Amino acid sequence: MHLLTNDMSSSFIPTIGLVLGPLKFDTLLDSVKWDEKGLAVAIAQNVDTGAILMQGFINREALATTISSKKATFYSRSRTTLWTKGETSMNFINVYDIFLDCDRDSIIYLGKPDGPTCHTGSETCYYTSVLNFLNQSQAEENNLAMTTLYSLESRVTQRKEELLVPQNGKPSWTRRLLLDDKLLCSKIRYLDFILEILKISVHGCVKVEEVLQVLRLRFSQSGVEEKKSRKAQG
Amino acid sequence: MHLLTNDMSSSFIPTIGLVLGPLKFDTLLDSVKWDEKGLAVAIAQNVDTGAILMQGFINREALATTISSKKATFYSRSRTTLWTKGETSMNFINVYDIFLDCDRDSIIYLGKPDGPTCHTGSETCYYTSVLNFLNQSQAEENNLAMTTLYSLESRVTQRKEELLVPQNGKPSWTRRLLLDDKLLCSKIRYLDFILEILKISVHGCVKVEEVLQVLRLRFSQSGVEEKKSRKAQG
Repeated sequence: MHLLTNDMSSSFIPTIGLVLGPLKFDTLLDSVKWDEKGLAVAIAQNVDTGAILMQGFINREALATTISSKKATFYSRSRTTLWTKGETSMNFINVYDIFLDCDRDSIIYLGKPDGPTCHTGSETCYYTSVLNFLNQSQAEENNLAMTTLYSLESRVTQRKEELLVPQNGKPSWTRRLLLDDKLLCSKIRYLDFILEILKISVHGCVKVEEVLQVLRLRFSQSGVEEKKSRKAQG
Repeated sequence: MHLLTNDMSSSFIPTIGLVLGPLKFDTLLDSVKWDEKGLAVAIAQNVDTGAILMQGFINREALATTISSKKATFYSRSRTTLWTKGETSMNFINVYDIFLDCDRDSIIYLGKPDGPTCHTGSETCYYTSVLNFLNQSQAEENNLAMTTLYSLESRVTQRKEELLVPQNGKPSWTRRLLLDDKLLCSKIRYLDFILEILKISVHGCVKVEEVLQVLRLRFSQSGVEEKKSRKAQG
């Protein structure tokens, strides 16, 4: 619903569900600490998962366009032009809110991507782990930057997928477990664990962050280490 | 445990639990697309919550230092010097992994902060919502950029805190509900909702991201709207 007020009729700026006077809009754009080239850093983040999708630069016009169109828009330094992520791929990033940092020279576009953000088809542009590169003898890519919850989800999914590959001989206990849903539900330790912890968490006893920290420490240990530590504790 | 090999004895680089030759280390640093000032963008992200803590710039030395020390280190453009976040406040960001983007000119420090990251004492530097500024008649700060799960957590916590403030007269139904844990557990719709959905999710039927999307859409509606939509559905 667009409500035009008198002072806006000549320069109406459609915004995130808002009707604004140009004054407030300009005040906001003026408050950004643009660098000597008129740019600031913009980070696009998935509102649901928290994944950092991509990072680009913005100028005044790019920010104004994002606020108006709700599609994450950047300034391309190499092409010296405005570009809206998704204008060719149709994988737009639908922006729900924008946050300025304390110095006002860096912003977050918090939004929902229509599809993979990276031009390579990857969900995000950050799929090259330095740790992995330094650890491995060969460069291995496609190792998405993932926070605790999604790293756990990815691990469980990967295990399940591995099981779909036909294997010779008698199925292992893990294989049987993961192929049998009832058995799975009753046995997989961290599924129950995460649920219990999240239950406590949402009832307000601990913070979700604390839950995830415990989970990370727990599942970063191997099964053998975990068994040992339980034994050590008696 | 430090294992020194022959080729590293003269220039040993302590790294994230690794023992490396200087060659691989240099290959990595060379692979970053440093800009004309020798800089790249660095974003510090909380490994558990996904919150973007701060954004700074790095040069070759800052990245090398972070890999060595596991403490997020940046290059201050204003002070033209290296600085490790936390060197004065002691609120270090303990880096678990570093991710390069597809263009190799932007990195993520994925880590765990020892305390609030912002010099203002705020958990992150992104606490100024553009949407809020444009909506409100007065500038309201301290509105942290939060993804769905933490936004929900914050809302529940806020409601509980509001209840601790003594009120005159007969307590409202919501107040009674939130003060009575048993009543709360049986009644608060989205607590049960989130648990059910997360249960389905971790059992592999849907992705966590889809769960959070449903949650976001659900709790972005007011109670009245939600009741209406249920009525409309029959």
